[in-house]
Amino acid sequence: MDTITIPTAADMHIHLRQGVLMNMVTPAVAEGGVSICYVMPNLQPTIANTEMALAYKAQLEQLAPNVTFYMSLYLNPDLTPDEIRKAAKAGVRGVKSYPRGVTTNSESGIESYDVYYPVFKAMEETGMVLNLHGEVPSDAEKNICVMNAEEKFLSHLKEIHLAFPKLKIILEHATTEAAVNMVKSLGDTVGCTITVHHLQLIVDDWAGKCHNFCKPVAKFPSDRAALRKVVQEGHPRFFLGTDSAPHPSHKKEGPDSCAGVFTTPLVLPYLATILESYGALDRLQGFACDFGRAFYEVKDEKWKGTVTLARENWNTPAKYSFGDSSVQGSEFGDVIPFMAGKQLGWKIVSIV
Amino acid sequence: MDTITIPTAADMHIHLRQGVLMNMVTPAVAEGGVSICYVMPNLQPTIANTEMALAYKAQLEQLAPNVTFYMSLYLNPDLTPDEIRKAAKAGVRGVKSYPRGVTTNSESGIESYDVYYPVFKAMEETGMVLNLHGEVPSDAEKNICVMNAEEKFLSHLKEIHLAFPKLKIILEHATTEAAVNMVKSLGDTVGCTITVHHLQLIVDDWAGKCHNFCKPVAKFPSDRAALRKVVQEGHPRFFLGTDSAPHPSHKKEGPDSCAGVFTTPLVLPYLATILESYGALDRLQGFACDFGRAFYEVKDEKWKGTVTLARENWNTPAKYSFGDSSVQGSEFGDVIPFMAGKQLGWKIVSIV
Repeated sequence: MDTITIPTAADMHIHLRQGVLMNMVTPAVAEGGVSICYVMPNLQPTIANTEMALAYKAQLEQLAPNVTFYMSLYLNPDLTPDEIRKAAKAGVRGVKSYPRGVTTNSESGIESYDVYYPVFKAMEETGMVLNLHGEVPSDAEKNICVMNAEEKFLSHLKEIHLAFPKLKIILEHATTEAAVNMVKSLGDTVGCTITVHHLQLIVDDWAGKCHNFCKPVAKFPSDRAALRKVVQEGHPRFFLGTDSAPHPSHKKEGPDSCAGVFTTPLVLPYLATILESYGALDRLQGFACDFGRAFYEVKDEKWKGTVTLARENWNTPAKYSFGDSSVQGSEFGDVIPFMAGKQLGWKIVSIV
Repeated sequence: MDTITIPTAADMHIHLRQGVLMNMVTPAVAEGGVSICYVMPNLQPTIANTEMALAYKAQLEQLAPNVTFYMSLYLNPDLTPDEIRKAAKAGVRGVKSYPRGVTTNSESGIESYDVYYPVFKAMEETGMVLNLHGEVPSDAEKNICVMNAEEKFLSHLKEIHLAFPKLKIILEHATTEAAVNMVKSLGDTVGCTITVHHLQLIVDDWAGKCHNFCKPVAKFPSDRAALRKVVQEGHPRFFLGTDSAPHPSHKKEGPDSCAGVFTTPLVLPYLATILESYGALDRLQGFACDFGRAFYEVKDEKWKGTVTLARENWNTPAKYSFGDSSVQGSEFGDVIPFMAGKQLGWKIVSIV
């Protein structure tokens, strides 16, 4: 098999940023073979209501008119059931919960999901999706750190699911065998996104290597094996959400590295290469194109095309530049992509 | 208590480097309140025999005439029992085993300690110390990664100890509860060094923070708690070995960060501050001064003085410069110390 032809992909978890970085990243979505994506709301300020989501969407559509952008709100204490109903009517697809957003208003941290139950109820009624960043805050007294913060979160996922069995919930960017097992054990309303980079990395790969550092961190080889396996099984509730999170290289290479791996412009070449490396290339379409669309019940896509990848050894770019260094006072820089300068085995040759 | 007066300390695991970096680091040993240290042999080329160790020692003594330098050889396939006897006679105190040194000559990795048994026998007979970097190589098939590489090594420690019960062995820079328990369970010939930074850091602290990245990596909160506890117990086989490992800042802050934390110039201020933070300040002298000397049976110290620390809040330097940027073509740069620019609660006020 020397070519693969599949529908344009669905990336159900993406960071598209703002300003000059957004200007570079947003057109790159289609370059990576993706025609629909679910956009994270953690901007500055965060996307807290319907108006903000629609204004952001308009900006994105100007940059990439063919791409369908599914918008989300940032879960926050000011979000009301009324706002949920308004957002749903306006086409906003879901609400993202970050652990920080939860802990801000609670002594006891993540336990305070209770206060959001009226919001979750409205989401369940209107078909909105709840996207969970599934980590509890680190706490040395409880032996919680970045290596087990996801596993310690899973009981909360189960609890919310049991309280709202018809609410669609996605455990985002799963990194552990425990997460895979938990999601499998729950009902059909619970899905799980898996990133490109978590199918490739383990803890060793981000130890001292800032461009592979992201949250949740990549974990044990057995965790990576579980993620790979569930994709290989073709489980329909596990699908692509890259969590592609571009940062300027000077914010990655320094004493305090920003968390995030940038995969947007090369999503399908990465995935084809990685899946083939463990014999799961036949799952590319299901994982990257079909299952995410099915979970979100996508019916309103602006455009859905066809991508052809060809077998070819080639090296990824060392960087992607953004901004214009010739404009005085403007922001500019480079973003280092995942596997920068490394060899991939598949290349996109056409998107029609 | 506003001052502490103790003997000058013993740092039983230190990297003093070569060239202009050595010129900066070596005089800093005494600044940190240390008068005797055990010097690692991983130079380029590695310290492979007695002559090389003595030549390196002479360089160090020129830079710090009052400090006692205990020298070590790098365990390697060319090291013979005869060379061990020669080294012992010349005052070389031990042999350091790195996992890489072991795996170079063996398909099956660390199992090949067997081939060194004649060397270990000669070491046992001559009173040389075996210093083990206690990690097995990462191996995804066996689910071994940087987070459990130390724990997986411990059976090898036990095996060598049982084969050579009179051989003094040190598990260097322990980072796990499992290591503490194993060392405790073995005989009095088995010691364990603990670094300054592993008493302070967990995995979260090096995730994206290159200046806290070292090998073995800092692990779970429960592991740090076990290290702190064994120091607090005053267990005499657990003592200071900083593994202070300076790297130029440009080799830390980049895509591929060198492993190592630099603590040499501030060893006792760091330790007093950290031990006090969990109520173990009364163990400073035992841990930092007495137990290491006792394990190595130090009798030939060139100079042993008295350090006084005073309670004072002050901020550590942001960097230590080395080399001379005005000399064309020469190497120069900065080393960022542990807790750079952060507040410590104790300061050395005199060393006499």
